Amino acid sequence: MATPLDPRTGLPVVAMVGGGQLARMTHQAAVALGQSLRVLSAGPDESAALVAADVHLGDHRDLDALRDVAEGAAVVTFDHEHVPIEHLRALESAGVPVAPGSGALVHAQDKLVLRRALAAAGEPQPAWAEVDTLTGIADFAGATGWPIVLKTPRGGYDGRGVFVVPDVDEATALLERHGTLLAEERVVMVRELAVQVARSPFGQVAVWPVVETVQRGGVCHEVLAPAPGLDEHCATAAQELAIRIADRLGVVGLLAVELFETADGVLVNELAMRPHNSGHWTIEGARTSQFEQHLRAVLDYPLGATTMTAPVVVMANVLGGAAAQEGWNGPCLDERVHHFMAHWPDVKLHWYGKGQRPGRKLGHVTALGSDLPEVRARATAAARYLAEGVVDPAFAFADEHRVADEH
Amino acid sequence: MATPLDPRTGLPVVAMVGGGQLARMTHQAAVALGQSLRVLSAGPDESAALVAADVHLGDHRDLDALRDVAEGAAVVTFDHEHVPIEHLRALESAGVPVAPGSGALVHAQDKLVLRRALAAAGEPQPAWAEVDTLTGIADFAGATGWPIVLKTPRGGYDGRGVFVVPDVDEATALLERHGTLLAEERVVMVRELAVQVARSPFGQVAVWPVVETVQRGGVCHEVLAPAPGLDEHCATAAQELAIRIADRLGVVGLLAVELFETADGVLVNELAMRPHNSGHWTIEGARTSQFEQHLRAVLDYPLGATTMTAPVVVMANVLGGAAAQEGWNGPCLDERVHHFMAHWPDVKLHWYGKGQRPGRKLGHVTALGSDLPEVRARATAAARYLAEGVVDPAFAFADEHRVADEH
Repeated sequence: MATPLDPRTGLPVVAMVGGGQLARMTHQAAVALGQSLRVLSAGPDESAALVAADVHLGDHRDLDALRDVAEGAAVVTFDHEHVPIEHLRALESAGVPVAPGSGALVHAQDKLVLRRALAAAGEPQPAWAEVDTLTGIADFAGATGWPIVLKTPRGGYDGRGVFVVPDVDEATALLERHGTLLAEERVVMVRELAVQVARSPFGQVAVWPVVETVQRGGVCHEVLAPAPGLDEHCATAAQELAIRIADRLGVVGLLAVELFETADGVLVNELAMRPHNSGHWTIEGARTSQFEQHLRAVLDYPLGATTMTAPVVVMANVLGGAAAQEGWNGPCLDERVHHFMAHWPDVKLHWYGKGQRPGRKLGHVTALGSDLPEVRARATAAARYLAEGVVDPAFAFADEHRVADEH
Repeated sequence: MATPLDPRTGLPVVAMVGGGQLARMTHQAAVALGQSLRVLSAGPDESAALVAADVHLGDHRDLDALRDVAEGAAVVTFDHEHVPIEHLRALESAGVPVAPGSGALVHAQDKLVLRRALAAAGEPQPAWAEVDTLTGIADFAGATGWPIVLKTPRGGYDGRGVFVVPDVDEATALLERHGTLLAEERVVMVRELAVQVARSPFGQVAVWPVVETVQRGGVCHEVLAPAPGLDEHCATAAQELAIRIADRLGVVGLLAVELFETADGVLVNELAMRPHNSGHWTIEGARTSQFEQHLRAVLDYPLGATTMTAPVVVMANVLGGAAAQEGWNGPCLDERVHHFMAHWPDVKLHWYGKGQRPGRKLGHVTALGSDLPEVRARATAAARYLAEGVVDPAFAFADEHRVADEH
């Protein structure tokens, strides 16, 4: 089947299900490629709906809404993993190109399906078991020791649906609430890493350097690219692991592989099959961003170069903080953006246009340079200021950060 | 007056008059800043209208359309210079912030007004005269020698409205057609340069490195950043000239100063008060792009760093060529984009989504690196392929351009 082209531009239309910040940033990338992302958004004020020209309002669980957004699009892809798999199969049966396909995406939707697939492939992962009885949990913990980690197989993200369980009493409550669970050993880890790889239907892959993700409470706060101090052998092994998984699962588009680094190597934690928070640094930090690459991959275009544009790149998330609380009487967002720009003229802002709520991912900032402590301090202080309205003392008179070439 | 903020985002709305590629790329930059550019577009299929969420359809010569797009916006700015100055004055009288203001913009609209202002400021420019009689033209040419350059004071761009006139006969025809003309000496130049500077209402300025613009038939084909071989003293002098002009004319937003480099220094050719083709390289090539900087400047935000991200950056325009002709039976645009990506995985594409016509600016590409001949060859070959569907033999088997980190 020939790719349908927009008669106005002579180029294909990509439809993305979900109107969050990933769709918003994918639209930005689409603009450069001569395209305009079509977005299925739950409401008119979602992050992507505020900036995209071609917005369909509807729910991702509504098959008719999915059929509508797919009409005339070259491919349907996703801003999140929550589209029911039976709806994806229905679209595929009707001949709609879906990327990643249902057969791949289920591994990002269901952690038990992922564990089974990785076990079958012999890839490194934590000790795990599917448990639906207290006896099963006790047996598993008997082998690995308490505490164990219990996860709901579906629906969790940003630390939700993940429980560190110290004893059988807490396990009882979770089992009653959730039924079947995934039990995992609590991994003694050095840190968390992530690898992002893009794969096209043709089978071309492109992988970015391995990054370190700094998590707090299961939520990503910072990404350091490349992962500091990771030796070349380990980095290559992690990239090869990500490529093998992408190939084996038949991923089309972006795959983020979240890893635990341990004393003995890496273990696979989770997968995401879409642009991912661990890849936001690529917008400025790599020759091809994850968002452009995702579009290239799902359209079966050749992939772009993934070389870094600076020796060190740090991305820091802006999570709703003090300034997002009810009754905040410090500087408003517009004022904070002014001060951010004055303090850090070389830190790049990405603000998602979302309503401010504590803990919510509202934006991110990216700093580039050559000295990790300096770059990291700049990114985290800038993100903290946007979230909390507080300037770190170290940056209160940061006159070394002047506008270059300014007279 | 407090800046009006969009209640959905807590951030200001910038309205841009004109729906061309400059508005399209400004919208991309707005997305990162948490904003969504409001665009006044002549039609629904204009370059920016295809990608922006907040599009008002209307004519830039219609005061009611201008009032409509200004409603609730923090500031009104421009994708082109063609808004009647009396309309700008009417908006200003009604309290609408307009950037650049009418008092500045008239210098980009009317070449005679510019010449008078530069003369009053003592800035270097070609010998010139306002002429409306054959005697006047003959007197001017008597002093400078034939050929002379005759320009319509208003409405010209991309070489339109500029005539190299060899003798009095041709001058006669132009005078009959246009009435008052600007006569200029034909400058013996080394090459053309451009400087871009941003200025905020507060008076902060930020200037990018001086670039060389490679023109053919009055149309920009390539931009080389920084201008090759320009000594530091000349570069600084050109930057200072641009800053003086921005200050003196009270420019708010981007100012592009087009210069002739001669054996004796630089002369001011023309001004543009908006993002400009000579600054497209800044999207990937500078820490802050001209589009982001224009938004920051018109909003009176602090300006961003203008440092280059690579030693050499080359932008090449894609002008409608053989592939835009009627009856073209080579690869269609979508196929050409495929081949472009396969050949040049590290060259960045910016396609404007416009209908393809010979000579029309359809997009541009940007290459980065450290060796000017190599970077330039890559950019120009890629642009030529997109325009003509022809691969330069030197690039037919360019297997050195592989996807980095690809396995």
